[in-house]
Parts: sequence; structure tokens; C-alpha cells
Amino acid sequence: MSQRAIGVFDSGVGGLTVFKEILQQLPGEELIYLGDTARVPYGTKSPATVLRYATEAAEFLVGQQVKMLVVACNTASSVALPELERRFQLPVFGVIEPGARKAVAMTRKGRVGVVGTEGTIKSGAYTRAIHALNPSIEVFTAACPLFVPLAEEGWAEHAIAHLAAAEYLAPLIRQGIDTLVLGCTHYPLLKATLRRVLGDSVVLVDSAEETARMVAGLLWERQLTRAGSAPRPPRFFVTDVPARFERVGGAFLGAPLEAVTQIELD
Amino acid sequence: MSQRAIGVFDSGVGGLTVFKEILQQLPGEELIYLGDTARVPYGTKSPATVLRYATEAAEFLVGQQVKMLVVACNTASSVALPELERRFQLPVFGVIEPGARKAVAMTRKGRVGVVGTEGTIKSGAYTRAIHALNPSIEVFTAACPLFVPLAEEGWAEHAIAHLAAAEYLAPLIRQGIDTLVLGCTHYPLLKATLRRVLGDSVVLVDSAEETARMVAGLLWERQLTRAGSAPRPPRFFVTDVPARFERVGGAFLGAPLEAVTQIELD
Repeated sequence: MSQRAIGVFDSGVGGLTVFKEILQQLPGEELIYLGDTARVPYGTKSPATVLRYATEAAEFLVGQQVKMLVVACNTASSVALPELERRFQLPVFGVIEPGARKAVAMTRKGRVGVVGTEGTIKSGAYTRAIHALNPSIEVFTAACPLFVPLAEEGWAEHAIAHLAAAEYLAPLIRQGIDTLVLGCTHYPLLKATLRRVLGDSVVLVDSAEETARMVAGLLWERQLTRAGSAPRPPRFFVTDVPARFERVGGAFLGAPLEAVTQIELD
Repeated sequence: MSQRAIGVFDSGVGGLTVFKEILQQLPGEELIYLGDTARVPYGTKSPATVLRYATEAAEFLVGQQVKMLVVACNTASSVALPELERRFQLPVFGVIEPGARKAVAMTRKGRVGVVGTEGTIKSGAYTRAIHALNPSIEVFTAACPLFVPLAEEGWAEHAIAHLAAAEYLAPLIRQGIDTLVLGCTHYPLLKATLRRVLGDSVVLVDSAEETARMVAGLLWERQLTRAGSAPRPPRFFVTDVPARFERVGGAFLGAPLEAVTQIELD
């Protein structure tokens, strides 16, 4: 049993899709969210730079006495997880493995697609995670740099998003994938558009749900669940001024954002 | 006369469109470029954060003994120019005033459109600069967040760019603008697409050319031009690893990028 909070971090607002799932599945837990909005995005930056930023973010949350760290950013999970686990004396959880697990469970033909940022796709992290579970699965990947700005612009279901999705997914459709991993926390906002482009036969894997489920499981397993009095409401920290985070983030959390505090990491 | 280099900085690769013009118009000058690629973009960040980043970038270039500072980023020019001028003992030049000047000179109906990042448009810097020259001109603005990722994706002339441009420009077209300021260094790459959406009657103002012209003028005026031996080739500094800058930047410079060095600003 531990009364301490769970710390969740992301490069910006995207991780709120993961945060929302954890909130729903673990209503008795205290949660702290950190969005590195002064340096967002991570998806176009080098592994070395993303590792430096992720380490600074983790240090802040560890300083807040969290009992567990959830890296709710696919790019940071792709390149920083082993180093964060080595460096900090607490459980560190990423979004890659949960997505990979779900994809392996869902595919029938053994042909899995993965979409994500440039950084996530280049890292090969999903392909490695899927092959670690089942080496016979064929993995086809595509970086989709336009999806994040489309989601943040509120154009996730606009004709422009449809055209972009058709362009990015064409090679994966040609490969006959039956499962698609949404390997970036922004992408669940484009689900309806992806569904229209892919048709109903392709399973969409959203890491957020699966990550929350695995976080819940780990808390039980390690006897770290919170008990007793009602938890404090979630707290939010950002590295740029909160205005844009509050405005854009509402769509990701599905609720108004309150109690947002600005901090400095660098 | 001064043998020292001209320092140019931008949040990333975009400022290379300005750098290219300066190179062409001032072949006898030494040039240093700094792209803050570890923290790009500036356009979605708050004025306070952009000011901090711009000050750190300027400090680096001043440390390189430059004789003049060109802020080749519209967002940074919008929010940081007065503070940089106060802080550093050398001429500081932005891209807003040159663009505004050109627009005022070109418009016949006194109806000018300005497109830029969220940060540039929110700052109102172009409207202020245009009104300082001619208060009777009507200015209509639109933030176009998709244009930068479209240009970096190499989709500047793709149907997706056309759709996005039509969406963003519709209100400006309805207002009957006869001149459009491209208020972001990435936007010149979308010229052909903007031309198709706007038709031939609207003048497109590209700050890059005009900025280079004014920089050249100021060098003469203050007797700071370089003389004598051939200048060293241009040098490039970035804050993230150079690979992506080299790859994407070639399209902006119109030539392969060489001599790129990584540095730390924060």
C-alpha cells in the first residue's frame, strides 16, 4: 500500500489521453501530470535530446515523491525507458509494450501496422517489442508527422485529415495489415478518420487503455495501491505558460483542465 | 568597415530562406546561422518562453563576435526584438518590419492579409508595423499552424496543402485583400499553392528578400561592410543533432548543408 501519487509525463498535451484512462480505471489514486510544453514536440528530435528532456521531466516527478512513473509519450518511451529505469529507484512504465501486447493479441493474419512520430518509427521500438512477443509477426511502419498538428488544430475529422491518412496508410493497406497500433498519444483523436480510411476489418490498437490496465495490474502486484480517504484532485504541471495547454488539452482529457502550474526543467 | 560575421538565428530550418537571400545579396560577407532545433517550433509557445530562447540564441551569436544580429524568425521577431535591442550592443534586425514595409508599398486597395504562426498572429506585430507606416490600411490576419509541418513534410504542393490553404485563406479572400504577407519563414515554400488558391491578382510578400535588402542597406549606412579577402564559407550551428537539419534544410537553402555543429544553449 502506498498513498503517494502516480506521476505521468509527456512532451505536451497528448499524454492526457493516457492520463484520462488511468483516472478512469484507478479512481482511488492521486495523479500528477507533467507536460513539457516549452520544448514540445519530441517526435522530430534526436534520441539524445529526447533522453535529456525525459530525464529532466522524470527528475521533477521523482522530486514530487511519486510512487511510479508513467511515460505517456511514445517517442520518450521509445528511446528513454531503459535509461530511466536504470536511473530512478521506482517502477517506470512506458506506452510501447502495452500497445505491442495488444497488437500481438489481436492480429489474426500476423500482419501488424504501426503509425507514430518520426522519432518513434525510426527507433524501431514497436517492431522490437512485437518481435520479442512473437517473432513471426510481420510489422509495417509509417511515420505520420501531420497527424499531431491536425489533432491540435481540431481538424481530426476534416477532409484534410482524411487525405493525409489515405496518403500515409496506403503502403500499409497494400501490405494487408489487419491491426494498426496508434503509436502516438495524439492519434486516438483521429480514430474516426482512420476507421474510414482503413475500413471495419482492421483493428485499431490504442495504447492508452492498455497502458492504464497494465499500470493498474502492476500497482496490485507490487501492493502499491492507495487506500482510505478520497484522493486529492489531479495536478498538472507544464513548462510553458498554461494557457495553450488548458485550451488544447481539454479535448484530450475530455474535461476542463484545472490546477495547472508552470515550472522550469532546464 | 568590419570583417566580422553577420549572425542569423531562427527556431529551426525556416530562417534558411532569409539566410539564402542574405548570402545572395551580400556575397562578400561572412555568415553564421543558428537554428534552435532542440526546442523548435517557437510558433506555438508563449511570448515569455520565446523571449527566453531568443535571448539565449542571441547570447551565443554575440559570443561569436558577430557585428549584426538578424532574427530570421517571425515569432521571435514579433515578441523579442525590443528586448534584444536593449540588451545587446549591436544592430538587431527582425523580419517583421521589412515585410510590413513591402506590403504597404504594394497594396493598392489598402487591404492587406497576413499569415503566420499562432504566436506571430497573436502578437499583432505585423498589424502594428503596418499601421505605424500607414494607419489607414486594413489588416486581416490568419494563423496557419499546418503550413510549417506541410513544408517540412515536403508536401508544399500536395493536394493536402491546397485544401489547408483554401481553408485558412477563405476569410481573407472574402475581405478582398490585394496583398498577402508570408509572415513565417517556411511559407515561401508554399508560394505556388498560395498562388493557386489566391489567383494572380494578389501580391505575395516574402520577407526574406526584403530583409536581405534592408540588411545590406544598414551595413552600408553604418559602414560595416566587409572588404578584402574572400569570406570564410557560412557556418551553421544547431541545438539538436544535425542530421534532420541537414536533410530538411537543404530544401530551404536550395543547396546542400555543410559544416553544421551542435551546441547547447540552455
